Amino acid sequence: MIIADVNDAQHPFDRAIAVQSLDVSRVRGHTQPEWANMVGPFGGITAAALLHAVEAHPDRIGDPLALTVNFAAPIGDGDYEITVRAARTNRTNQHWIVELDQAGEVKTTATALFGVRRETWGDTEAAMPDAVPPEAITRTGLIDGIEWAHRYDLRFAAGPVPVNGPPSASSTTTLWMRDAAGRRIDYPALAAQCDVFYPRVFLRRGAVLPAGTISLTSYFHADRQQLDAVGDDFILCSAHANRFSRGYFDQSAQLWSRGGQLLATSHQIVYFKG
Amino acid sequence: MIIADVNDAQHPFDRAIAVQSLDVSRVRGHTQPEWANMVGPFGGITAAALLHAVEAHPDRIGDPLALTVNFAAPIGDGDYEITVRAARTNRTNQHWIVELDQAGEVKTTATALFGVRRETWGDTEAAMPDAVPPEAITRTGLIDGIEWAHRYDLRFAAGPVPVNGPPSASSTTTLWMRDAAGRRIDYPALAAQCDVFYPRVFLRRGAVLPAGTISLTSYFHADRQQLDAVGDDFILCSAHANRFSRGYFDQSAQLWSRGGQLLATSHQIVYFKG
Repeated sequence: MIIADVNDAQHPFDRAIAVQSLDVSRVRGHTQPEWANMVGPFGGITAAALLHAVEAHPDRIGDPLALTVNFAAPIGDGDYEITVRAARTNRTNQHWIVELDQAGEVKTTATALFGVRRETWGDTEAAMPDAVPPEAITRTGLIDGIEWAHRYDLRFAAGPVPVNGPPSASSTTTLWMRDAAGRRIDYPALAAQCDVFYPRVFLRRGAVLPAGTISLTSYFHADRQQLDAVGDDFILCSAHANRFSRGYFDQSAQLWSRGGQLLATSHQIVYFKG
Repeated sequence: MIIADVNDAQHPFDRAIAVQSLDVSRVRGHTQPEWANMVGPFGGITAAALLHAVEAHPDRIGDPLALTVNFAAPIGDGDYEITVRAARTNRTNQHWIVELDQAGEVKTTATALFGVRRETWGDTEAAMPDAVPPEAITRTGLIDGIEWAHRYDLRFAAGPVPVNGPPSASSTTTLWMRDAAGRRIDYPALAAQCDVFYPRVFLRRGAVLPAGTISLTSYFHADRQQLDAVGDDFILCSAHANRFSRGYFDQSAQLWSRGGQLLATSHQIVYFKG
């Protein structure tokens, strides 16, 4: 179950999700400075690492359908261990329970659903957001000091990070994004990109405030062929909040290929102050 | 940790979520015929039972913020056991891992986030769907033979269950609902109501097809005062799908008080055939 040695992984994303097998249900990973957030690593890279730990398990069947990640406590710089367990294996799907710990302390919990896709009727009912092409938008950063944001080529079509207000009536951000080093998209990359949005409360308050995702759930609609077809191209990502109340708000997001395929829908609940 | 004896619970909902303590992390519950679905119990009542098992744990702090339930296998009629474990307790929130099994076989997994709410800025950005009042709509059932649907007073404002087509261009259903026996709403009841929607693919295909929720995530926005203010009144529930693809689709839903408070947002991924 050796998946990749950390030193072999050349791309910063692959380095960050690489794990070494300890036994059949336990692997070791390492935080990488390229993915640092304000406190601990970018939540998206943690989601990707957990999904990858399941993907790499020898008993895994099918592809990712759903992933819920609960950010229970900040992950410290250095090693961490991930326990993966197939709670239930059915004929066409599989339910995993995942925990990330450091020195015996649980930092992240997750459940993952993998399954086999098959031909059926299909349709996309959601509408792709309007946006000018990424080539017509200047690449910008996210927030000063957020190291992981440099790993992406981010181009905001609407709702960039507010700088000294004014508050916006809308919490919607729409941006094009791609891996800045040209890594092709796969399920772990898509899982990470589901968490690329800065907290919606910044827009509504016109300020950068203390806030952090507590629980993130993503549904993967794209099959492998559709992801392969995206390659290293930009994807269009849009997110909005529904309700802000007593220290928490929710966010719903859609991630689209440039060609109009809905690759993933993603939801989260976020803690905020102020 | 005896919460309620099954025989003491007079209302069918309370009977269905009642648990008996086995030890500090394990309780026993029982399926109830009033909540039968086509196969096994209504997913919403299982979600409610899992949430209640956490609520009733002596170490629990705060109120429900988020719940993810993974329906791994059908629950058989009879007894089941639930294991609840606080993976992490912080100052203002708590992360739980929950598993339901029967004879040692895992049937359902879940994670639950509880937390303390406090005063902050707040706003509801989502818009309440248009609907005539419930008093202007005739109460109807769901699908013949679905026993649990009789536990609710359901009044469809849009998107009732299609009977022999034609297919609809929209997957949206909007309905008023309340407990048919007048039980006042609480968090377990709200968790159950998040799963009241029949599969969206029925509308789009104009037919009742094999389909079932695999994973359900709900965010609870209402605090206890807001839930208490709803009491036994109708709530307005609306759901739609974003994408149907290769045997799976997602659903996003909102649950509103009559007075315009967004009580919960809820998302699920659903398996379907055809």
